[in-house]
Amino acid sequence: MKKRILTGDRPTGALHLGHYVGTLANRVRLQDEYEVFLLVADYHALTRNAEKDHVVATRQFTRDLVLDYLAVGIEPAKTTVYVQSDVPSVCELHLIFSILTTVPRLERVPSLKEVMDAEHIEQPAYGLLGYPVLQAADILHVRAHLVPVGKDQESHIEVTRELARRFNFLYGEVFPEPDALIGDVPTLAGTDGKSKMSKSIGNAIFLSDDAATVEQKVRGMYTDPARIRADIPGNPEGNPVFQYHDAFNPNRDEVEDLKARYRAGKVGDVEVKKKLAVALQNFLAPIRERRAYYAARPGTVDEILANGAAKVRPISQETLDRAREAMGLGRVAARA
Amino acid sequence: MKKRILTGDRPTGALHLGHYVGTLANRVRLQDEYEVFLLVADYHALTRNAEKDHVVATRQFTRDLVLDYLAVGIEPAKTTVYVQSDVPSVCELHLIFSILTTVPRLERVPSLKEVMDAEHIEQPAYGLLGYPVLQAADILHVRAHLVPVGKDQESHIEVTRELARRFNFLYGEVFPEPDALIGDVPTLAGTDGKSKMSKSIGNAIFLSDDAATVEQKVRGMYTDPARIRADIPGNPEGNPVFQYHDAFNPNRDEVEDLKARYRAGKVGDVEVKKKLAVALQNFLAPIRERRAYYAARPGTVDEILANGAAKVRPISQETLDRAREAMGLGRVAARA
Repeated sequence: MKKRILTGDRPTGALHLGHYVGTLANRVRLQDEYEVFLLVADYHALTRNAEKDHVVATRQFTRDLVLDYLAVGIEPAKTTVYVQSDVPSVCELHLIFSILTTVPRLERVPSLKEVMDAEHIEQPAYGLLGYPVLQAADILHVRAHLVPVGKDQESHIEVTRELARRFNFLYGEVFPEPDALIGDVPTLAGTDGKSKMSKSIGNAIFLSDDAATVEQKVRGMYTDPARIRADIPGNPEGNPVFQYHDAFNPNRDEVEDLKARYRAGKVGDVEVKKKLAVALQNFLAPIRERRAYYAARPGTVDEILANGAAKVRPISQETLDRAREAMGLGRVAARA
Repeated sequence: MKKRILTGDRPTGALHLGHYVGTLANRVRLQDEYEVFLLVADYHALTRNAEKDHVVATRQFTRDLVLDYLAVGIEPAKTTVYVQSDVPSVCELHLIFSILTTVPRLERVPSLKEVMDAEHIEQPAYGLLGYPVLQAADILHVRAHLVPVGKDQESHIEVTRELARRFNFLYGEVFPEPDALIGDVPTLAGTDGKSKMSKSIGNAIFLSDDAATVEQKVRGMYTDPARIRADIPGNPEGNPVFQYHDAFNPNRDEVEDLKARYRAGKVGDVEVKKKLAVALQNFLAPIRERRAYYAARPGTVDEILANGAAKVRPISQETLDRAREAMGLGRVAARA
């Protein structure tokens, strides 16, 4: 029996190279070894912003997100991709868990304050305070054993583990207490070299960018600012152009040669960037191709999501039935 | 078209004469004029106490509550009686509403503090803070027009009205903004004459008490303590024995005669109480009879609740579908 993994994203827009390096590459690897459930968390997205425009955008982003998943090599035959709001039984588990944790506990979750600061939220929605409760329902309704997180993110699943323990203690063993599958979540600098790659900062190369856009973004990339001429020795460390070479250029000899010549003041930025552009185009070409294939067949995305939901719903319902039975909340039919 | 009413109770134990005077009599009247949905709010009960024993008790109390409803004259053909946890779509509406109100707003709901004080809760469950959100889902998933409340309880449905307005404003008109159906909610003193009748204080006469128990409780009732002999003039005001006569003795002449003689010091407590016992037995006899009838046929209660849930589920699902459509959250099938 393969162990089960739950992972996912809020649908917030096109994915970029930073996402690839951070989580997508890992997910593509995991799907061979584990039973992976990949959640498009649309309700989570709405806890931060409930405006109609945002709801509509979230729906479009859902499609984009799935196209990006397929493009990088997520295979629906191996990974169950589904949309949160397509599996309503998670909402009932969410309500049950809402009685098993307290307001002060949720107020202590560090990411609440981070999100409020980042999104300029003064008064959190009730559902935003409850984000970890819904997350617990997401993880536990498929009875996942593992949740991939970065080294510093173990606290993200602590509420889930607490809720599983609390439920099992009160009513009997229903939920596996999921473990963090801790891995590197490498970050990628943006094209400005200043911050982590991020859509909102405008320093991102998207998986869906066309060749001309990638070319142009690479040409405009930040490099060592002290190096105003090609014959001045430069520093490849902390230089996003070389970070991208390391991440995406499979020709290690070429990369080492470029670094050596850069340090020696024997290569111009133009050559370094041209070779990076080639490497990125090689990396992105099959991704673009798969993306275009699925984008031209919108019915396929719908089918994948319908299949995903159809696979998750009975698992989720069975979990819920077990939970209700353990609690002593029978369905009417069972009540005679 | 009859207007629709939503009302209900947490299943917390047997109902008593105070409930009858306060709400049950009114509900029996309302069912002729309105389409009434009568909710057994089991999930609400658990927000205050999630211990296994309490969950099990809640299930037994659910049965007792329905027996009491039937006993006082709630007719399933007129009033749809159903259990909250039998209609899972309310949980999804609850989740949607949870993004449309804020934590500070819910912290300002006065009943939160009252409940925490009364039940000695130091740290409210997340779901207890969200009590008004689930209540809004209860009211709005059946698209109720009216919610019966006492004069001082209008604030109880204010969060519901706000959520209906907020949803309609953001996404389009889906929910009727329910009105309070304000009526007297008379209170009945307990047999101790000191507090409102209450199970926890132990001063209650239950609708399910047998004749001997009622007899005994009436004999032990508090009366005017200054009146140590039958020939001392007494005061019927604030005297629970006379309050009960007013509420349950249909023989107005007898009651006025007793009051006059009580004021004049011309009647003993024994006679007043004996006549009250007779009146209460007359009042309770048909209630007991109906209760015994249904208690002997447990399948009937199950059937009533199954029918109630079967009637509410499609209404609730239709509401949810309209809400999701207004928001732009289609089911997979609608997404092509």
